[in-house]
Amino acid sequence: MSTPVPAGFLFASGTAGIKASGKPDLAVIEAPQGATAAAMFTRNRVAAAPVVLGRRHVAESRGRLRAVVINAGNANCATGEAGLDAARRTCVEFARLLGAPVEHVLPSSTGIIGVPLPVEKLLRALPGVHDQCNNSAAALDSVAHAIMTTDTRPKMASASFCSAHVTGIAKGAGMIHPDMATMLVYVLTDAAASPALLRRALRTAVNESFNCISIDGDTSTNDTAVLMASGAAGVNASQDERGFTAAITDVCASLADQIVADGEGVQHRVTLRVDGAANHAAAARIARTVAQSLLVKTAWAGADPNWGRLLAAAGRAGVAIDPGAVDIWIAGQRVCAGGASVAFDADRAHRAMSEPAYEIRVRVGAGPGTSRVLTGDLTAEYVHINADYST
Amino acid sequence: MSTPVPAGFLFASGTAGIKASGKPDLAVIEAPQGATAAAMFTRNRVAAAPVVLGRRHVAESRGRLRAVVINAGNANCATGEAGLDAARRTCVEFARLLGAPVEHVLPSSTGIIGVPLPVEKLLRALPGVHDQCNNSAAALDSVAHAIMTTDTRPKMASASFCSAHVTGIAKGAGMIHPDMATMLVYVLTDAAASPALLRRALRTAVNESFNCISIDGDTSTNDTAVLMASGAAGVNASQDERGFTAAITDVCASLADQIVADGEGVQHRVTLRVDGAANHAAAARIARTVAQSLLVKTAWAGADPNWGRLLAAAGRAGVAIDPGAVDIWIAGQRVCAGGASVAFDADRAHRAMSEPAYEIRVRVGAGPGTSRVLTGDLTAEYVHINADYST
Repeated sequence: MSTPVPAGFLFASGTAGIKASGKPDLAVIEAPQGATAAAMFTRNRVAAAPVVLGRRHVAESRGRLRAVVINAGNANCATGEAGLDAARRTCVEFARLLGAPVEHVLPSSTGIIGVPLPVEKLLRALPGVHDQCNNSAAALDSVAHAIMTTDTRPKMASASFCSAHVTGIAKGAGMIHPDMATMLVYVLTDAAASPALLRRALRTAVNESFNCISIDGDTSTNDTAVLMASGAAGVNASQDERGFTAAITDVCASLADQIVADGEGVQHRVTLRVDGAANHAAAARIARTVAQSLLVKTAWAGADPNWGRLLAAAGRAGVAIDPGAVDIWIAGQRVCAGGASVAFDADRAHRAMSEPAYEIRVRVGAGPGTSRVLTGDLTAEYVHINADYST
Repeated sequence: MSTPVPAGFLFASGTAGIKASGKPDLAVIEAPQGATAAAMFTRNRVAAAPVVLGRRHVAESRGRLRAVVINAGNANCATGEAGLDAARRTCVEFARLLGAPVEHVLPSSTGIIGVPLPVEKLLRALPGVHDQCNNSAAALDSVAHAIMTTDTRPKMASASFCSAHVTGIAKGAGMIHPDMATMLVYVLTDAAASPALLRRALRTAVNESFNCISIDGDTSTNDTAVLMASGAAGVNASQDERGFTAAITDVCASLADQIVADGEGVQHRVTLRVDGAANHAAAARIARTVAQSLLVKTAWAGADPNWGRLLAAAGRAGVAIDPGAVDIWIAGQRVCAGGASVAFDADRAHRAMSEPAYEIRVRVGAGPGTSRVLTGDLTAEYVHINADYST
């Protein structure tokens, strides 16, 4: 791996025995000298125990973390008081190993909902994982692997800020939808930054990246984006907050793109741009409705330039639009003008839609509202993956 | 066919050459002595030309119709002024054949969006179809067949009101979603009724039937429900408006059930009941979010009692719920209590979910709000049907 490893962080993964496959399912990220931190969590009303506890810890520690403990294979969601207790015991045990306050440990879980977390397995595995922690690229890579569930490949991205590094890892391939930190994302930098600056930077980066992607319209109960700054590189983000935020955003945008590319069953990544709406909120509503339409997503699966489905989905978004003012472009070619058919090269459109990635633009009028969603097609493979997941 | 044929109506179908398959694609329903009528149309902002014109005709005729002319294979939607002109010419020609005012003819179209309607083909076929019109069950049946697109079977239902008949036919197998008359539906009765009474009865019947079903969350641009009363049976609906409305509702409920059963790729019909919400609107929002969740629908495809996906979808509906107060039942068996797992017989749940139809109940609290949606699973077959439809 050539991914730069930010200084001030240690990594390790292990196998607690939670995944039935026997693959690594436990990962930790440590900041031995501590790190400032910001975190964003799911907006789903049903939040998993680690999200409930993680919110609390980041608030109580006033944005300082010593470690993140992540398990895959079990979401520890809809597990009641016992689930909250399991998350708490995990943090208590790891805080003991580190000699840190418990609220400086952030828990994360991903996997099936509603099954009790086998916390004893986790507790048994933690000391060994802690002992193996190191600052190597291989260890970082092993963390990116251990947090995978239905992901087919790990997701990593890097950027630089002055002499500091920014590196992010993420997991996520389904349940991907805006309005939240839609997956598990850990962005680490060895720049120094205040928790307040990290919160601003993370908010901007998430809005520009993870909040612009949608695979299946489902918003997970667990997802979490964490930004941690060790300060080990001797550079302070406040020297150039804009440049720092840009670096964080670059990393998040790359991770978001990787997540869509690895979306369950996704064969084609589609950047859907909506413009000309009355305002951004109206544009976003139209973009999301189109991006979630099963008829649209299945047409994309067939590389079918059936723009009527795009138009029909835009029309049912609950936003007042004039159908006679709608223009649609597929991969730069106009296929609908004034809400009606225009002559276009269907073969060329089909060829463009057969590529792994292309762009669709829907102009709904002459207003200033714009929105962009990075999404994908809906294939039979998605159905197979999700019809067979838990049983 | 044993379906009773209401008196005062004539039926015929023909082949205009719109469907590439060469199957019948044109149907007419005539009321030689005229009929009172009510109609409901799609709420999609992108409404097809026949919907635009149909709305106008029903308003201009003050609820009186002599005929409905239906074509399948082309939606005549997103076809601009030419499309509106094509719909108008169809009505003008048929009104000429009938010797009726043009606004007494209602046009309907279903099929692909954005392709110009080959109106000359329709105009050429109309006189022959008009000549064949008759009151036989075979002719009624042929209409139910001619309006099919991706439907695998025709949909018909009957009820009686005093000595009068109520018979409905419908088409629809995809793009099925609440908030509209979500398909083509024609309900005919030989009772007499005022247009105002018909409007009330149709509104009630549609709310209790077609507005409670969802296949894929897509709302069509074309869909139309028409209720026509010939008065030929010598019974007046005003004698017992409640009983008349119940008969109309029975017919619509049966047609709605048939539509879901024939939903594209649907292997399992699921009646989803949500109760305990703060109010009906909140319950409806939760029910629709769950019914549209791809993760939920694919779990149903696998007959997988993965109730965590139901809970997670309920949590993202944008309604304030307490996850700790959520109970879930699958086919009468409680699988989640207080938002957490309870011991349940997973084999029994799996067997119940392997049946063609079953019920799921989600209680989200102790409020008075309830809602019911009749929906289905999402299978790879749905994707195949819709990825290959137009090309």
